[in-house]
Amino acid sequence: MQFHHAGIATDDIDGLVDLYGRLFDAPVVHREQFDGMTVVFLELEDGFFELLEAHDGGPIERYLEAHGPGIHHLAFEAADIEAALATARDCGVELIDAEPRPGAWGHDVAFLHPAATGGVLLEFVDR
Amino acid sequence: MQFHHAGIATDDIDGLVDLYGRLFDAPVVHREQFDGMTVVFLELEDGFFELLEAHDGGPIERYLEAHGPGIHHLAFEAADIEAALATARDCGVELIDAEPRPGAWGHDVAFLHPAATGGVLLEFVDR
Repeated sequence: MQFHHAGIATDDIDGLVDLYGRLFDAPVVHREQFDGMTVVFLELEDGFFELLEAHDGGPIERYLEAHGPGIHHLAFEAADIEAALATARDCGVELIDAEPRPGAWGHDVAFLHPAATGGVLLEFVDR
Repeated sequence: MQFHHAGIATDDIDGLVDLYGRLFDAPVVHREQFDGMTVVFLELEDGFFELLEAHDGGPIERYLEAHGPGIHHLAFEAADIEAALATARDCGVELIDAEPRPGAWGHDVAFLHPAATGGVLLEFVDR
């Protein structure tokens, strides 16, 4: 399993794109509107930041109201996402997505429930 | 800049070592007592989880009281950590560590203040 990205919830995506771009020398490689969010991917040497700004009452807006800005989730690339989900099930981990579903940037993704993983929202991305 | 590890604060490090080890097929590669914490590194294909359990009133204990278990920080390997800190200073980011200091597992590390980085506690690790 390889690191794919860290998802960061923000109420100032343009400011954070600028700051993280400079801090990490990380160019913008993708930007889209997705599921009530503005989503920007910045490229590191071996992964990405996924910056998430809410609008229209999407899930990130509710997250920001509850937690404020910060790290929202961690995503890892699985060679076989179905096998990774089966392992999670075997470990007794509640799945948010029982099957991979279309995520941002055209990825197939599946999230695990943070209550089952030590308070960490984990995402698997299909390699 | 390369992903190095995600730091996870937990009140059940043995349970999380077992769960994350199985979910990510990630073996334990280091365990130590450091700065009022039990610290365990699990190895991914291209990085690590750093699991952190508090004892003796260390900083993770205070974090858990305020936030509960979950993602505590993100660490990235810099080819030149002094240059990375200089860039952060140029960006107006407040530094927790103005100079690299000895961290867990013998790494030289420096943290940036989360109030200056969109609510994310960022750590630079010297490559």
